[in-house]
Amino acid sequence: MKLKRSSRLVDMTGYLLQRPHQIISLSTFSERYGSAKSSISEDLGIIKENFESQGTGRLVTIAGASGGVKYIPYMEMSDAKELMSLLSGQLSQSDRLLPGGYLYMTDILGQPFYINAIGRMISAVYSKDAIDVVMTMETKGIPLAYAVASQFNVPVVIVRRSSKVTEGSTVSINYVSGSSKRIQTMVLPRRSLTPGSKVLIIDDFMKAGGTMKGMANLLQEFDAEVAGMAVFVETKDKAPKLIDGYLSLLKLSMTEQEQSFAIELGNVFNYYSLEEKI
Amino acid sequence: MKLKRSSRLVDMTGYLLQRPHQIISLSTFSERYGSAKSSISEDLGIIKENFESQGTGRLVTIAGASGGVKYIPYMEMSDAKELMSLLSGQLSQSDRLLPGGYLYMTDILGQPFYINAIGRMISAVYSKDAIDVVMTMETKGIPLAYAVASQFNVPVVIVRRSSKVTEGSTVSINYVSGSSKRIQTMVLPRRSLTPGSKVLIIDDFMKAGGTMKGMANLLQEFDAEVAGMAVFVETKDKAPKLIDGYLSLLKLSMTEQEQSFAIELGNVFNYYSLEEKI
Repeated sequence: MKLKRSSRLVDMTGYLLQRPHQIISLSTFSERYGSAKSSISEDLGIIKENFESQGTGRLVTIAGASGGVKYIPYMEMSDAKELMSLLSGQLSQSDRLLPGGYLYMTDILGQPFYINAIGRMISAVYSKDAIDVVMTMETKGIPLAYAVASQFNVPVVIVRRSSKVTEGSTVSINYVSGSSKRIQTMVLPRRSLTPGSKVLIIDDFMKAGGTMKGMANLLQEFDAEVAGMAVFVETKDKAPKLIDGYLSLLKLSMTEQEQSFAIELGNVFNYYSLEEKI
Repeated sequence: MKLKRSSRLVDMTGYLLQRPHQIISLSTFSERYGSAKSSISEDLGIIKENFESQGTGRLVTIAGASGGVKYIPYMEMSDAKELMSLLSGQLSQSDRLLPGGYLYMTDILGQPFYINAIGRMISAVYSKDAIDVVMTMETKGIPLAYAVASQFNVPVVIVRRSSKVTEGSTVSINYVSGSSKRIQTMVLPRRSLTPGSKVLIIDDFMKAGGTMKGMANLLQEFDAEVAGMAVFVETKDKAPKLIDGYLSLLKLSMTEQEQSFAIELGNVFNYYSLEEKI
C-alpha cells in the first residue's frame, strides 16, 4: 500500500512507539509504505525532531547492514517532577494510613495511566543501560514491572512465595525479611532466566530492603546479574537499609506512633540529574 | 509552542495512542500547538483515516460543548488471526506439558509485546461496551488484566486469596474450585469497587470455571455487574464449564493419560465476527 507522507508519519509514529528498544530497518518501512528509503529517512528526521523536542524519547540511528532506527523512551525531568508531585499529593490523603506503618496504594497502582507513566519514568533513568529482563516479587509489584518491561521490550520474571504446579521445576532460596525478621522463601521457575542476564529489579514498596536483597541473592543462583533496582515508595527509617544502590521515587515517613505520615521525594532525581539532556 | 503539520501529526498520534477511550477536546490540541481548530480538525481527519485503514482503531468525534475526539483501540481480524497462530505455535512445543494437565505459559505471559497484543485483541471484542473496571485473580492473570485495562484506560482490581495488611478492610467469599472441588477463599479490598461498576473479568487460564464464577459472585457483594469475561486459554473437557458467556482465545486439549496435548482456537472469533468492520 502506498501512503502519503502525512499518513506515513501517523503510522510510523505508532509503529515505533509500540516497539521500543527494537532496531527497525529502513527496508521494513519502505516495504510497508511502498516508498523510497530517502523519503523514509526524511520522515524519521521529522519524528526524531518531534520526539526529542517533546521529551518522548530518542530516535537512534544504527549504521550498517543490520542497521536501522531504534526508539528509546524517555521522560523529561519537568514531566517527571510533575508526575511525582501529582502522585505524592494523592498518596498524602490521610485515609490511606493502615495499621503497621503501611499505606493504601492499591487504587493508584491499579490505574494503568499512572503505572505506565511511572514505568516510563523508571525506564528513563536506565535508558542507556543494557537490560535483558525485569524481575519482581508477587503480587503488587507486577503491574509496575510490566510497565517498565514494556518500555524496554524485555520479558518479566515473577518471583513467588511458593512453587506452583503451573511453572515446572523451580529454584528457591530462604531470606530474612528485614522488617518482620522472619525467614521467608522465594521461588523462581528454573527456565525463567538464562545465565548472564542483566536484570532490573522492580518493586512497589520497600521497608528494610530484605525482599530486594533476597531477589539480588536469587539472581546469583542463576548466574545472572543486577543491572538496577528501583522501588516506587520506600520508607524513611533511622536504621540503614539492607541494600544500597537502589532508586526510589517517593519516600514515606511515619510519626512515632504511626498516627500521621508524610510523603517526600525519593532519591530518583539524583540519578536523573546525572543524565545528560537528550 | 507552534508546530508544523508534520510535527503535529507525530505528536497527536502519540498523544491519542496514550489516552484511549478518553475524550480530548479540540482546544487541548489547539492550545498545545498554537494552531487554529480548523487545522487541528484536518490533522485529526488524516489520523482517523490512517487508524481506520491500518486497523489501529477508530477515532470517534463527540459533538457539543464537552465534545472532542476519542481514540478506541481495535485489532483487525486478520491481525488477530496471525497473533493466534503465532501463539498457538509457541504453546504447542512439547516441553510445555506439566503434571496435572497444566501448560507452561509463564514465558509467553512474561513478554510485554505478546501481553499487550493479546490485551488489544480482547479489548477489540468489547470495544463498544461500557467498561468501568477490569478484574482478575492473582497472580498470573495480572499482566493480561493490565494490558486490557490500558486499552480502556480504566483501573484494575486484583482479587487475592487472603487479605493483606496493605489493603485495609476487605470483603471475602468462599467458592468451590471446579477442578479440585476444594473450598477456597477470595478477597477484595472494600474500597476497590463502587456500586454499579461494569466489570470485565480477565484470567490467563480456565479449567472448570470455578474461579471465574467466584469472581462473578464476588461482584454481587459490591453491587457491581459483569460486563464480560475473557480467558487466554481454556481447557477442552467433556464436562460442561461452571459458567457460560465467556470468551476464550485458545483451547487446550489433553489426551487421556495427559501425555500429549493440542492447542486450538477458542471461541473468540465467534464474537469477533459479530463486530462490524470498523
